[in-house]
Amino acid sequence: MRNLAMLISAAQSKIEPDIIFKNANVVNVFTNQVEKCDVAVYNGVIAGLGEYSGKNEIDVNGKYLLPTFIDSHCHIESSLVSPVEYAKLVVPKGVTAVIADPHEITNVSGENGLKFMIESAKDLPLDVHYMLPSCVPATPFDSAGAVIDSALTKEYLERYDFKGLGELMDFVSVLNSSDEVLSKLEDVDIIDGHAPSISGKELCAYLCANVKTDHECTSAREAAEKVARGMYVQVREGTSAKNLKDLIPAVTPHNVSRFLFCTDDKHLDDILEEGTISNCVQKAVSLGVDPIDAIKMASLNAAQCYKLDKCGAIAPGYFANIIVSEDITASKITEVYKKGVLVAKNDKALFDKQIEDSSAVTNTVHIDEVKPEIFELEFSHNTPIVKVMPDTLVTQKITVKDKEGLSLCACLERHNGTNNIGKGFVYGFGLKNGAVAQTIGHDSHNITVLGSNPDDMALAVNSLGNDGGIAVVIDGKVEAKMTLAISGLMSDKPADISVNEYINIKKAVEKLTPESKIDTLMMLSFLSLCVIPEIRISDKGLFDVTKMEVIK
Amino acid sequence: MRNLAMLISAAQSKIEPDIIFKNANVVNVFTNQVEKCDVAVYNGVIAGLGEYSGKNEIDVNGKYLLPTFIDSHCHIESSLVSPVEYAKLVVPKGVTAVIADPHEITNVSGENGLKFMIESAKDLPLDVHYMLPSCVPATPFDSAGAVIDSALTKEYLERYDFKGLGELMDFVSVLNSSDEVLSKLEDVDIIDGHAPSISGKELCAYLCANVKTDHECTSAREAAEKVARGMYVQVREGTSAKNLKDLIPAVTPHNVSRFLFCTDDKHLDDILEEGTISNCVQKAVSLGVDPIDAIKMASLNAAQCYKLDKCGAIAPGYFANIIVSEDITASKITEVYKKGVLVAKNDKALFDKQIEDSSAVTNTVHIDEVKPEIFELEFSHNTPIVKVMPDTLVTQKITVKDKEGLSLCACLERHNGTNNIGKGFVYGFGLKNGAVAQTIGHDSHNITVLGSNPDDMALAVNSLGNDGGIAVVIDGKVEAKMTLAISGLMSDKPADISVNEYINIKKAVEKLTPESKIDTLMMLSFLSLCVIPEIRISDKGLFDVTKMEVIK
Repeated sequence: MRNLAMLISAAQSKIEPDIIFKNANVVNVFTNQVEKCDVAVYNGVIAGLGEYSGKNEIDVNGKYLLPTFIDSHCHIESSLVSPVEYAKLVVPKGVTAVIADPHEITNVSGENGLKFMIESAKDLPLDVHYMLPSCVPATPFDSAGAVIDSALTKEYLERYDFKGLGELMDFVSVLNSSDEVLSKLEDVDIIDGHAPSISGKELCAYLCANVKTDHECTSAREAAEKVARGMYVQVREGTSAKNLKDLIPAVTPHNVSRFLFCTDDKHLDDILEEGTISNCVQKAVSLGVDPIDAIKMASLNAAQCYKLDKCGAIAPGYFANIIVSEDITASKITEVYKKGVLVAKNDKALFDKQIEDSSAVTNTVHIDEVKPEIFELEFSHNTPIVKVMPDTLVTQKITVKDKEGLSLCACLERHNGTNNIGKGFVYGFGLKNGAVAQTIGHDSHNITVLGSNPDDMALAVNSLGNDGGIAVVIDGKVEAKMTLAISGLMSDKPADISVNEYINIKKAVEKLTPESKIDTLMMLSFLSLCVIPEIRISDKGLFDVTKMEVIK
Repeated sequence: MRNLAMLISAAQSKIEPDIIFKNANVVNVFTNQVEKCDVAVYNGVIAGLGEYSGKNEIDVNGKYLLPTFIDSHCHIESSLVSPVEYAKLVVPKGVTAVIADPHEITNVSGENGLKFMIESAKDLPLDVHYMLPSCVPATPFDSAGAVIDSALTKEYLERYDFKGLGELMDFVSVLNSSDEVLSKLEDVDIIDGHAPSISGKELCAYLCANVKTDHECTSAREAAEKVARGMYVQVREGTSAKNLKDLIPAVTPHNVSRFLFCTDDKHLDDILEEGTISNCVQKAVSLGVDPIDAIKMASLNAAQCYKLDKCGAIAPGYFANIIVSEDITASKITEVYKKGVLVAKNDKALFDKQIEDSSAVTNTVHIDEVKPEIFELEFSHNTPIVKVMPDTLVTQKITVKDKEGLSLCACLERHNGTNNIGKGFVYGFGLKNGAVAQTIGHDSHNITVLGSNPDDMALAVNSLGNDGGIAVVIDGKVEAKMTLAISGLMSDKPADISVNEYINIKKAVEKLTPESKIDTLMMLSFLSLCVIPEIRISDKGLFDVTKMEVIK
């Protein structure tokens, strides 16, 4: 109460504000105008805009003040670092809130994973609004480390503070009115969608399930239809999926308030290099979007969609979450304030927090030491081969005459000690002498290993240890290794160390596949996901996605 | 669950929808486009837009389908009829939701008034979202029938299902950080504002109190400033206050989503004649607003401001709240559907409901029979006179040489049996032989009586009885009378009877003041409100608003 009274007094210059930004160019997302004025902050809240003075004046000298950015859909795990380290990467780039779906870690570590993510995100200058993963496991064919059925869904929604349900990937079950899936949706306020290419009556049906957003649009036409049917469309720019250029033509002055930005999956090196949402703003503007419309997509629109009150604008009563930038598109951010506290300056995070106790989510690789023999595989001209291609996650099922150009690939179940292994030949990676293994494999995150020979494959898998991570072996030697101790998905080390480790991994992979045009690590991480056509390698064997069955 | 499964099936034409609107021109508030398509409805919800067929097809033959309208701020009491009868008036005009502040009845009947309004609004095709009145009584000088302090505010917010706090009229106490007023605001999600002419730092301070809306703007400049500071501006067209023409110039393509429509106070005869929100749409369009922007202001924008999920658009999963109109501005509404049920056709309501038991809110006039002598008043050339003027509620404090043109006026406390009476001379009504008395007098709703002589005044007051209402006496005879049995504010009769009674009252008043350019009833109803300059007549005597004190 006292605080509110003081805030009201500060707004009227009856008492001194804590901070006064003097001579600012304030970006107003309500009017699409830039206002030249001072901004007064009291106790973390914006008290007023106008003429203010006091002891703590910060003369920003004509710099722009922008509301901080909101990443409307991301998986923090994809950054390969913990929420704490993730915050240190994105906050200096102007992001102070993310809507995060922790479904990667949940597929590995279940409730322990949720708890770890929730605890890790506490007391950060980044507001992490978690959505409860809706599809764990992702498919009935998955061997995941956890299952969240409708009963557990209700339980977790009550036990923890989720904003709603994470991306509803299983649209097929929705369209078929599966009781189990529909049960999960009951009484949920916000449900995120995932509806690639869904259109017409199927889109209508999917929306009847109360789905609010979609981040899977790949064309302006698809985005326009989804907006017309009432969805918020999240324009995605991640490490792999980059849809901004294709979607921006769908944005009009009339519908702009229904568009948001998101990253979905973005690796730490890319975040470090180009930021996340600021990058979306800059790209949108370069494609002709009005800068303040772009900022609105990055701030106010997401705040409205996810009901983040007092966020997304620089206005009295709003949290003092402010970007100070030399230019209007946030390409030259000099300071970031979160609730009135300076939390980043000149691209450096000014906060720190110990990574939470991760003991409940480490040691998640439950396999015995493997012998090279298990990777041996007989070839005949009838053997179904997985053909991978550049710029797509889709594979083709082919047969070939001889083994020229083929690599060995295997998926090893790592959660439940089943010793399940699925194997197959893959064509298209152009692998030299060596192997690469990783514990990242959507969405169950078993071990996927690719190699030119069983010995190097065994070495790569064995060197992952009980913690998991990524290992690259060349000519019988471990060339690069990155431990991802947190559920085999995230490093427990500081981001600056992790980024170097990851760059080394990428270099080693390049050395291993010098002529490949395929993003090997990305492709590997999706090679076991049994919903992407045409043929996959799961821990149960080669999987024909068209027929939805294991190939005998 | 079953219903959701069926809805999803209906969307995909796997089962038949309940209703199919064929050949519609659907107004899409997300894209500002008109789509030619069918609309399928299942179990009160819109299942899909596209091509649909089935047994129950309604060929609308190119008519427009619009989302139904939302009156974003109103006092149902001002219509002079009960919520049930009010619904019958506005639903045929396309309104299926109102945000209503029942502060008139609450000032008279306290919690009983709230309960009556809440019960009355149940099971209507009009969703009445009540805000808890924040200022009862309106001022410390008021003699109201109830007091809602901060403790009761918290109690009622918990006990009843309010959307938030009603218009925070006491902005002075907010700006002065009154503990009692600020206590009321704690943990309230939506707070409606009331900030006439508040600007600059005072506006910022008012917004720090978490106020979300304002319906008191009278100029485009004022509206533009309030929108820029983050408020939703409610463009008002009522019986007396008509601000639309002045505010529309502030609406731009960039800020249109922050504008809503409202009536605030509109009498039943005006509603019957011109509707409420449909009238706003038509006026806005006539002033150059894009028709779909106007419809958005009347629907989606209000739904977003007040967090009315699944309302405000024609889209899959939204409630099937649909206006069928021959034209896009809803001037020729042929049908209104609420949750898929036809509730009005050709301007007639197709629903009925008994008015709730009103025994707890009748018999609210607690005064003894009055004698003419109590209205006698001595005149001298020093006596302060209340001067009323056309087209404004503001009065002037004047003195005059003789009694020529003066009328007698009095305010009688009617709630607590105090027999309080305040008296004064009024200049400007041009009253002939007679008197008019009413139990409507903002915001405490004591009895205000205006007359040319004490006898007619006594007759007028006495004929109000214990129920209250409006009585007009001419030449010693009751010329017209309207009983407002519900708290002395609303009729308990059907709207068609009430409207005739009210028209008779208006005719009688016209006969009583043939040359007056003043809206006598309206002026009388504000003559005791001690916050409008310059001089008022309260039950405690003449009141100097400038000095905020009773004139001795």
